[in-house]
Amino acid sequence: MINSIIEQYCPVKLDSEEKAIILLDQTLLPNETVFLEITDTETLWEAIHSLRVRGAPAIGVAAGYGAYLAAINSKAETYEELAKDIKISTEHLATSRPTAVNLFWALGRMEACLKAAEGKPIPEVIETLKKEADNIRFEDEQTCKAIGENALTVLKPNWGILTHCNAGTIATAKYGTTLSPIYLGEERGYNFKVYADETRPLLQGARLTAWELHKSGIDVTLICDNMASIVMKEGRIQACLVGCDRVAANGDTANKIGTSGVAILAKHYNIPFYVCGPLSTIDMNTQTGDDIEIELRDASEVITMWYEKPMAPTDVKVYNPAFDVTDNSLITGIITEKGIAYPPFDKSLKDMFAKP
Amino acid sequence: MINSIIEQYCPVKLDSEEKAIILLDQTLLPNETVFLEITDTETLWEAIHSLRVRGAPAIGVAAGYGAYLAAINSKAETYEELAKDIKISTEHLATSRPTAVNLFWALGRMEACLKAAEGKPIPEVIETLKKEADNIRFEDEQTCKAIGENALTVLKPNWGILTHCNAGTIATAKYGTTLSPIYLGEERGYNFKVYADETRPLLQGARLTAWELHKSGIDVTLICDNMASIVMKEGRIQACLVGCDRVAANGDTANKIGTSGVAILAKHYNIPFYVCGPLSTIDMNTQTGDDIEIELRDASEVITMWYEKPMAPTDVKVYNPAFDVTDNSLITGIITEKGIAYPPFDKSLKDMFAKP
Repeated sequence: MINSIIEQYCPVKLDSEEKAIILLDQTLLPNETVFLEITDTETLWEAIHSLRVRGAPAIGVAAGYGAYLAAINSKAETYEELAKDIKISTEHLATSRPTAVNLFWALGRMEACLKAAEGKPIPEVIETLKKEADNIRFEDEQTCKAIGENALTVLKPNWGILTHCNAGTIATAKYGTTLSPIYLGEERGYNFKVYADETRPLLQGARLTAWELHKSGIDVTLICDNMASIVMKEGRIQACLVGCDRVAANGDTANKIGTSGVAILAKHYNIPFYVCGPLSTIDMNTQTGDDIEIELRDASEVITMWYEKPMAPTDVKVYNPAFDVTDNSLITGIITEKGIAYPPFDKSLKDMFAKP
Repeated sequence: MINSIIEQYCPVKLDSEEKAIILLDQTLLPNETVFLEITDTETLWEAIHSLRVRGAPAIGVAAGYGAYLAAINSKAETYEELAKDIKISTEHLATSRPTAVNLFWALGRMEACLKAAEGKPIPEVIETLKKEADNIRFEDEQTCKAIGENALTVLKPNWGILTHCNAGTIATAKYGTTLSPIYLGEERGYNFKVYADETRPLLQGARLTAWELHKSGIDVTLICDNMASIVMKEGRIQACLVGCDRVAANGDTANKIGTSGVAILAKHYNIPFYVCGPLSTIDMNTQTGDDIEIELRDASEVITMWYEKPMAPTDVKVYNPAFDVTDNSLITGIITEKGIAYPPFDKSLKDMFAKP
């Protein structure tokens, strides 16, 4: 049942005639639920660039279908012409969000697929590309589901769970990473009580996490970030689940600003703190969190964005880092599609990659 | 020099002709700096009720001058008539903010002053009331200054200081409690770098603290509440200074929501965490923080207030406690006008009251 509910909010998929991408415009949430019908890569470029679709896995799926759109829009009569048309479109798509690694990964995969189909008749090449894009989507769905299943092994019914930011169904092909065990657990009567940090300054917790969980009928309570301590103290929280943007080889985890604070509070109150993410987020070439550069963003996000009037002197200094790094010593476990890594992470993460 | 700057933002004082209260309308900050000229207690009632004046000490000063306004507006020709007129006004003023202890304290003090002047000629009674209101203001100024002086004994030049909410000059007669050492230190070349938590949901840090420090030329940087961890980790913070709404006999401290989280982060990063407040905030009849009831406020403050559009589903559950309690084990010292209390607080606070 939860399946049919969250499918209604699928962030990116092909329409039933396989001629257009149906894309949830996340910039309008939580006030309007609008699905865009995108039939060309120029419009898709704008949608990725403007964060109408967001979340690394969802962007990857969008990019895969983008390459397919380029193929069906091509007037080419030979494989060479088709390949050229696709290349022009995908090279352009690659510029839509220069820091999104998943974008390049998905486009690279579509390119390899195209190359492997060299010499085949055009309809067959197009069908192959569609299947590859479907695979990207399907594989992410399976990955998210496996993360959820693994997470459920350490969660108990009726627990209160604190989340930060949004790593939910609308950031992925389906299920989400952090929210996957919430959805899977809901189907099985776990009856979780979720506390969602609003996640300033961009409010992904309020706008997205609270929205998708509430829409799905899950017991969710919105709190300001600075209320995480009191809800833990009052015994409302039995586990923290957060996502990750990059995990270093030693387990240090970069994620949305505020995550490290949640981890420190959890340690203080003796509450387990889990990081959820696909293996692809673990970067064994990054030794420690010190090697992860933190993006600094504009003061306007804190002073004026969302507000009717500026909420601080417009010329005051603002420090606005987009991410922080949670020290591995604060992390109970890192939950991936292949299982849960426990400390010491330098060993357990290496073992995780070696697993079949 | 700092004195003449912060005097420009005095939240409540008598005008030079002693006929009106000049009150800074804090609801319009940070976008407009408007001083209201209040000549009757009905308008003052509205100003206190609508939080145009806020902060326990500033409300106390306003109430004192309110009783004086009632006196000069009275047409009474006898002491009895005057006392009756004042009583009607002050009883009404007492309903403007039913939870503000300082309001009742100041009105009670004015009432006692009135009683002591029984039988004196009316002009003399009025002059006595004005002097008493001036005393309330002057004494708070001295208290704040003493808190600042005591705090400076544990702070070093060039330190980074993190604050939460607003316990500044505009919440008091002058100097503030938490911000008093910042202002006094600025005069003496301490060159503090202040990091102000924006303090969701009501944004007192962004709207008020950042505003008054910035106006005063102090080096202030605004951060979201969830950035406190990263600024501590990056070595930007050498001390945390916060205010208090009520301190229990064992040192447990109720203050603006999020304060306990800051204290836990400070302990984790080994940064001293000081509570600043007048002795009048220490309630020796409250044994521990468990005895302090936490006010729960409306969901709209989190979902819609300040925003152009709702930032979460309008019918989602919200938990919005206005305060939290910081455990005494997390507090380095409690800085009062009589000195600094250190752990064990049950003993040191008792000694503090016994001091001459």
